[in-house]
Amino acid sequence: METQSPNSVKLTLDDLTVGQKFKSGSHLLDEMQIKAFAKDFDPQPFHLDDVAAVNTLFNGLAASGWHTASITMKLIVTSTNIAGGIIGAAAEVSWPKPTRPGDTLWVETEVMEVKPSQSRTDRGIVTVRSVTYNQHDEVVQILISKLVVPRRSD
Amino acid sequence: METQSPNSVKLTLDDLTVGQKFKSGSHLLDEMQIKAFAKDFDPQPFHLDDVAAVNTLFNGLAASGWHTASITMKLIVTSTNIAGGIIGAAAEVSWPKPTRPGDTLWVETEVMEVKPSQSRTDRGIVTVRSVTYNQHDEVVQILISKLVVPRRSD
Repeated sequence: METQSPNSVKLTLDDLTVGQKFKSGSHLLDEMQIKAFAKDFDPQPFHLDDVAAVNTLFNGLAASGWHTASITMKLIVTSTNIAGGIIGAAAEVSWPKPTRPGDTLWVETEVMEVKPSQSRTDRGIVTVRSVTYNQHDEVVQILISKLVVPRRSD
Repeated sequence: METQSPNSVKLTLDDLTVGQKFKSGSHLLDEMQIKAFAKDFDPQPFHLDDVAAVNTLFNGLAASGWHTASITMKLIVTSTNIAGGIIGAAAEVSWPKPTRPGDTLWVETEVMEVKPSQSRTDRGIVTVRSVTYNQHDEVVQILISKLVVPRRSD
């Protein structure tokens, strides 16, 4: 497994190969973060109110799936070093388990496909699968993204 | 087109039909919001820094795709009135155009499929397609979500 730091050499499409993996740092989620995100973007009782959350499908306070996705993005951005940045054109996301106050989240990203563009010789699409885990190594999110990645220019 | 307000009757799976549409209110995006979200969740130059953003794929400051998705979620939550709330199990998202400071975003959601669960008689999966538009009626995001929706209990 390869871990990239933001200081390492920038990776172009030509440096990426199927099966290559990147492990992120971790993020500790807490109640305050969950409620603050929910207030701005997903104001529903199971994300905002501990008591009301008990009698919902979540059986207690849980983060918005979009919050989990956003934390995943932060973890990927701060631990992978792709030339031009992490730019997604499209994504598929699923949330097999909720994330909770006190969870420590981390992400492992694997390269699934590397496809140079036919029409634009300076770039291509790299498909990656990013699995977000909690501190019990349970899968809380699976994200498959199509990233726009520049080709080596030299 | 039907517009639901948070005060209207809660819709169960049995009240939803393919082709039914829900139009949201609107959200005015600004530079401060874009940079604040990016700082927390997507710290890349094209989301953080007007000057650095000019020489990137985005040709100027743009919101994180996850920010657009999160604003979309807020607009859906505050304008659709599904029993049990808006709970997504999985989603596919694409971003045909970036969102920018000064954009006014709004969402139209259409019911694509209504599927009672075989194993759980109290619920089912409703597939919806939510298209996010800017003030020029350009499509900035397409989101297809699978929502867990309770059945009518009476």
